[in-house]
Amino acid sequence: MLKRLPRVVREQQMLDAAVKVFADRGFHAASMDEIAEVAGISKPMVYAYLGTKDELFIACLQREATRLLETVAAGVLPAATPDEQLWNGLRSFFTFVGAHRDGWRVLYRQARSEPHFAGELAGMRARIVEVVAGLLESACAAAAVPARPGDFVAMAYAYVGAAESLADWLADHEEEDPEQTATRMMNFVWIGAESLLQGRVWRA
Amino acid sequence: MLKRLPRVVREQQMLDAAVKVFADRGFHAASMDEIAEVAGISKPMVYAYLGTKDELFIACLQREATRLLETVAAGVLPAATPDEQLWNGLRSFFTFVGAHRDGWRVLYRQARSEPHFAGELAGMRARIVEVVAGLLESACAAAAVPARPGDFVAMAYAYVGAAESLADWLADHEEEDPEQTATRMMNFVWIGAESLLQGRVWRA
Repeated sequence: MLKRLPRVVREQQMLDAAVKVFADRGFHAASMDEIAEVAGISKPMVYAYLGTKDELFIACLQREATRLLETVAAGVLPAATPDEQLWNGLRSFFTFVGAHRDGWRVLYRQARSEPHFAGELAGMRARIVEVVAGLLESACAAAAVPARPGDFVAMAYAYVGAAESLADWLADHEEEDPEQTATRMMNFVWIGAESLLQGRVWRA
Repeated sequence: MLKRLPRVVREQQMLDAAVKVFADRGFHAASMDEIAEVAGISKPMVYAYLGTKDELFIACLQREATRLLETVAAGVLPAATPDEQLWNGLRSFFTFVGAHRDGWRVLYRQARSEPHFAGELAGMRARIVEVVAGLLESACAAAAVPARPGDFVAMAYAYVGAAESLADWLADHEEEDPEQTATRMMNFVWIGAESLLQGRVWRA
């Protein structure tokens, strides 16, 4: 078992290097030579550990998506009330995106624009929608608000789409603050336009 | 001027045929032969009128995006109050998507997954975000709600992302009603989660 630790550490180094190179160069222009060089590992070792460029890209995607889900889940779970849950989840999400702009570009933009990764990305998106729909269902059940099961999935698509779009905007605006972006989303999602136009504002 | 009418009519026939074939086959598998056949026009004529397959695809994109924007703008403009504006806009949008599922697949999904159309799609999205940001700004100004100019653009990204994601879901669910989808979005955007969890519901 002692032998596994260096492998895990090396894989993370390679993935860090790959995320950086894919983000800088784009999927097509990224070369395995550069990834190996940035990782400080020989090219045959990169192939031996993580396979072809396609497989390496999918490994990057999966690691970034798992990190993102774990971060958001850690934010959401311990909270007591639905607004705390939502705020913690949104703050975790936008803080993650703000701190991993490279990863977001790999995770979301490159994968989205490569037809052969579309299935992989759709699968991850479906997992996220399912988690959000589950949270909505729990919140409605706890508040004894009646709703049809189909509604949760449709609403989850709206939530996830809004968060993705705003995260994409944040990734392009280095000067924007993640927590303020989360606050904007909270005003959008929690308060609603009607109350906002009556001058109400949500604050952390 | 009389000579132009048949050309316009023919171009629309070709675009109708192209949207259908692109939606059925995907961009890569779509052939100019099939598009010509579905349009009832010879292949050299298709090339003469609308150019290469890439140019034809971009012409499809532009026509569908323009139709969509015109439909939504026609819904939004005559309304008096912000909630009427929003409801009319959302109802127009989801009704359009529900009635043009083929077009939506061409406009949104195919273009999104083809790297060389990404710039075209980003330009259209920027136009839509700008329109939505302008509507938000007018609504806030009319209600005398203070807001920073940057907020409108960020909020518009959230609105557009939510609508896109839900429209994508609608395009995949033939059995779902566009007006009910618009109502869900209205509940999400207008009422907000806080009021929804208190049992409030928005109805047309």
